[in-house]
Amino acid sequence: MKASINKSVLIGIVILTTMFSSSFAQNNNHYMRIAKIIVDSAQLENYKSALKEGISQAVKKEAGVLSLYAVYEKKQPTHITVFEIYASEEAYKSHVQTEHFSKYKDTVKDMVKSLELVDVEPVALEAKKNVF
Amino acid sequence: MKASINKSVLIGIVILTTMFSSSFAQNNNHYMRIAKIIVDSAQLENYKSALKEGISQAVKKEAGVLSLYAVYEKKQPTHITVFEIYASEEAYKSHVQTEHFSKYKDTVKDMVKSLELVDVEPVALEAKKNVF
Repeated sequence: MKASINKSVLIGIVILTTMFSSSFAQNNNHYMRIAKIIVDSAQLENYKSALKEGISQAVKKEAGVLSLYAVYEKKQPTHITVFEIYASEEAYKSHVQTEHFSKYKDTVKDMVKSLELVDVEPVALEAKKNVF
Repeated sequence: MKASINKSVLIGIVILTTMFSSSFAQNNNHYMRIAKIIVDSAQLENYKSALKEGISQAVKKEAGVLSLYAVYEKKQPTHITVFEIYASEEAYKSHVQTEHFSKYKDTVKDMVKSLELVDVEPVALEAKKNVF
């Protein structure tokens, strides 16, 4: 019985190691961008709902959408930043062709006052393994 | 033997489920910030090395430093953005007291031309479970 549990733990560790071996540091094809968005204050809550839904759909449905982190500034809540990581530039091009992206763009077209897209490259991308 | 392996897989799944249950969506105490840094172009490579080392040490050594993503702009490589997620504001306050943070600040003090710190709150933080 004791030997069996030890084997169980070992197999668990092997599963975890395999899953976590595909880290950012080992893949240079990722496409990363920062989107800086200023939203009409009267429509901010509606905008945030649409953004949340669009992000949820994209990360759930698209294999190439690795991470989308959207935040607003405490001092200027209409200023939104989205930190975007795609598996490749092709994955990004595919993303903007999806139905959920079109729905998001259509929903927010009269809510967004300005949009700036900044292509970026990594210096360091580090995260705790067990909180993501 | 077959029963033992089935049990092993089950235990593996339980371990994974437990680890992944602590997602951002379920914790509102996280402290998040965007740091916008402009670096002296003549010292950019040295700056990036120091930043990389500081980030690596912080995420490895500090339980409360959950994620530090540092990038530079493709069109303006001296413009660095760091997207920072701490477990709490206390974790951030503890971070700036560490030896590795002091070493980073001391190393870069004559390399940084400007530093803007922007406190932010999440709208949506979504990421693939198996790539982080």
